[in-house]
Amino acid sequence: MDDARIRINIRVVSGLMKNPPPNALLTDFYQLAMAQAYFESQMRDTAVFELFVRRLPKSRQFLVAGGLEQAVAYLEQLRFTGEDLAYLSSLGKFSAPFLDHLGTVRFTGALHAMPEGTPFFADEPILRVTAPILEAQLLESRLLNIVHFQTTIASKAARCVIAARGRQLVDFGMRRAHEADAGLFAARAAYLAGFDATATVAAGQRFGIPLSGTMAHSFIEAHDSEQAAFRNFVRSRREPTTLLVDTYDTERALQRVIGLAEELKAAAPMAGGIRAVRIDSGDLAQQARRARAALDAHGLGDVQIVLSGGLDEHQIEELLAAGVPADAFGVGTALDVSADAPALDMAYKLEEYAGRPRRKSSPGKATWPGAKQVYRERTATGQYLCDRVVRLEEAAVGRPLLGEVMRDGVPLAPPPPLGRVRESSRTELASLPPALRALGDVPQSYPVSISDALRSLAGSLDSAQARES
Amino acid sequence: MDDARIRINIRVVSGLMKNPPPNALLTDFYQLAMAQAYFESQMRDTAVFELFVRRLPKSRQFLVAGGLEQAVAYLEQLRFTGEDLAYLSSLGKFSAPFLDHLGTVRFTGALHAMPEGTPFFADEPILRVTAPILEAQLLESRLLNIVHFQTTIASKAARCVIAARGRQLVDFGMRRAHEADAGLFAARAAYLAGFDATATVAAGQRFGIPLSGTMAHSFIEAHDSEQAAFRNFVRSRREPTTLLVDTYDTERALQRVIGLAEELKAAAPMAGGIRAVRIDSGDLAQQARRARAALDAHGLGDVQIVLSGGLDEHQIEELLAAGVPADAFGVGTALDVSADAPALDMAYKLEEYAGRPRRKSSPGKATWPGAKQVYRERTATGQYLCDRVVRLEEAAVGRPLLGEVMRDGVPLAPPPPLGRVRESSRTELASLPPALRALGDVPQSYPVSISDALRSLAGSLDSAQARES
Repeated sequence: MDDARIRINIRVVSGLMKNPPPNALLTDFYQLAMAQAYFESQMRDTAVFELFVRRLPKSRQFLVAGGLEQAVAYLEQLRFTGEDLAYLSSLGKFSAPFLDHLGTVRFTGALHAMPEGTPFFADEPILRVTAPILEAQLLESRLLNIVHFQTTIASKAARCVIAARGRQLVDFGMRRAHEADAGLFAARAAYLAGFDATATVAAGQRFGIPLSGTMAHSFIEAHDSEQAAFRNFVRSRREPTTLLVDTYDTERALQRVIGLAEELKAAAPMAGGIRAVRIDSGDLAQQARRARAALDAHGLGDVQIVLSGGLDEHQIEELLAAGVPADAFGVGTALDVSADAPALDMAYKLEEYAGRPRRKSSPGKATWPGAKQVYRERTATGQYLCDRVVRLEEAAVGRPLLGEVMRDGVPLAPPPPLGRVRESSRTELASLPPALRALGDVPQSYPVSISDALRSLAGSLDSAQARES
Repeated sequence: MDDARIRINIRVVSGLMKNPPPNALLTDFYQLAMAQAYFESQMRDTAVFELFVRRLPKSRQFLVAGGLEQAVAYLEQLRFTGEDLAYLSSLGKFSAPFLDHLGTVRFTGALHAMPEGTPFFADEPILRVTAPILEAQLLESRLLNIVHFQTTIASKAARCVIAARGRQLVDFGMRRAHEADAGLFAARAAYLAGFDATATVAAGQRFGIPLSGTMAHSFIEAHDSEQAAFRNFVRSRREPTTLLVDTYDTERALQRVIGLAEELKAAAPMAGGIRAVRIDSGDLAQQARRARAALDAHGLGDVQIVLSGGLDEHQIEELLAAGVPADAFGVGTALDVSADAPALDMAYKLEEYAGRPRRKSSPGKATWPGAKQVYRERTATGQYLCDRVVRLEEAAVGRPLLGEVMRDGVPLAPPPPLGRVRESSRTELASLPPALRALGDVPQSYPVSISDALRSLAGSLDSAQARES
């Protein structure tokens, strides 16, 4: 009811214009089969679909919404090209009048959504599409594909942010992300959830995310000595840099770093310099402590320690709990594939058609019917107290989380800058009840209530369905 | 030594030309930092890098190579555009002479690889790049990103193919794949490993993979009765179609399907017809048995049963072991994110530079040095007997698996048609020792030997490294 109060700013960014996402055929075949049936049966009424997660993975106490900016760009740009229609025609499965109609399809509906970076819970709609059923149905596969991925990664990244307690976090994971887009959008999702930088250059170019990077073992190995490798690297950088010290023997490498630092000090002003050392294998805790001690003993207290090598939020938490002197962490594969929860039970379900609420009653997959809003109540200090899922027309205590983003197929405002999304996401993470910020697998009980009106609506639909049979 | 015998056919397909992959900046920042250091230190010699998996995931007895066609296209198209160079220049971290040089960089080296669809094991190189070190290093991140993903998915798909014992398998997973490319290339990787079809329309368009699809629950719910939904759907299809029977009550839905089938028979010749029913939730085994019995009892023995809903290879195996009458399976999320093993410990490591073998000795990450070949020995009936990893110049029993794919930056032949890759992949799967085809988590002991010459080379490099310090 209050959606207009919280309009979210969304517009296609120029980078996306230059690299258009895959076309309208990135959908499931059945969407087109159903579209033809809607078309031929003259079913043109308005449908309401909602996107939500049925159950949280065991290792998640909350999720973080991501991907809205790209979802809006997709809806705005959705159209079938002549080439698409020719391909569909070649399949011999679609009628000419339907394909003609498909060529004219645009998204003409409304989109309501939680802002990116909002923590949310099971059963809470995070997007709501209101549009003629043919359009609203066609969108399903790709809309889920976009929102599911960035939400999966932002949710994993948020856990790393909690674990790192303010230390720098860098996304190192592109090489094992699931193909190109995943590498790019994992960087974006991690950044919006509070990461500080990414190693993925294209993500810097496209999204303005700060870039970070050190050197690989191969660089050291290609040189005839580690000392020569360090020297060549430092000399070629325009800024203080990070040296990788675990290629052969970390202790000896550290002595070389210290020697080089002294050389550089003597030879100042040189262009380069040593900003940090990186340790990527072995006993990270022990090596970091020894590195810190060795560096400090030589007056190199400002040389930082970067840890990487198969890290996830649990290892970061353990390292810091043990007092390991780490200034930054590189997180790779565990982040970019969300290794412990690579998929969410996210669905996009019909809630209403032609003004009538709808409900599936398949075992384990029943949904709450009708268009809904989520209200979040907070304590006086801003901490989350509870959420309420209610029918759209109900009043409820708290603030509504879904705001109007598109109307008549047009975004209401440009998207918020990614940096601002990140700031508000960090604020929201800090507002979670402390029990939810714990990283263990024991499910915490954040209260999300389903309103009586919703329950009673679901009951009456089930009775009607039983009578119909 | 025998590489020329097994040239693999690779060329850029027209679809990829029309949708070029992301540009050269889809790489890690450190690749560019190292490239500048190589450039400024005049290190222009030839490097040999190999791509391999260090350890198999617990739930994999073998992996299946995928992504070579896209890897070749990437190498062929690699170049930095003016826009890329302007972005890099804007960072203030690279010298003008280096950026000028980067603008001229092309892949000019050689690529050797196992054919797509080849089963392989830990420690076996599946790709080998031989090129000036700056080029060979720059490629690392994106080459891994391409090969890692399709190998991950092809390896998961192969397990489903084994479990399905000849039943039809359809990829349903795009919506929860990790963004657009992952949806597209998961369909390709699943098909090359033996799947029969995909629901992802763009994958049909781009790769010629057969398309398959049914209907969603929302289609049923949008109608005022299930009966009307079934009728509208069948009427709108040009071919016999599949009806989803678990939206409300499967038993009642089946009676409706039977009624409709009788109507259609009476009204023949109608365009549409009922090819199958799909069950997507609840007790699949029980419902499939009841469906089969009900259909058979009404003379509908040719109406097939399609099962879906969170399936993976273990559930398929169990259903078939219990004799459940299923003709086809839709596999979604578990396949497209390889849920139980969403990433592989895949690496791309320097093995040789300037004619000298190289080796990292980091704990747990040590590599076998020098350029290598993998020989596979088979029994008289073609079953795999053992593999041998040897120095490139060694002779060995069996057939070499890595063949020459590119020379001087140019593919030696067009890529093999995907259908042929799929056929040979199915043959290879059938040649695995039976113990490796079991789907349990107990590691099987397929023998992969490391040659004495390799072991002795590694030992001598370690001693030399110890002396150097």
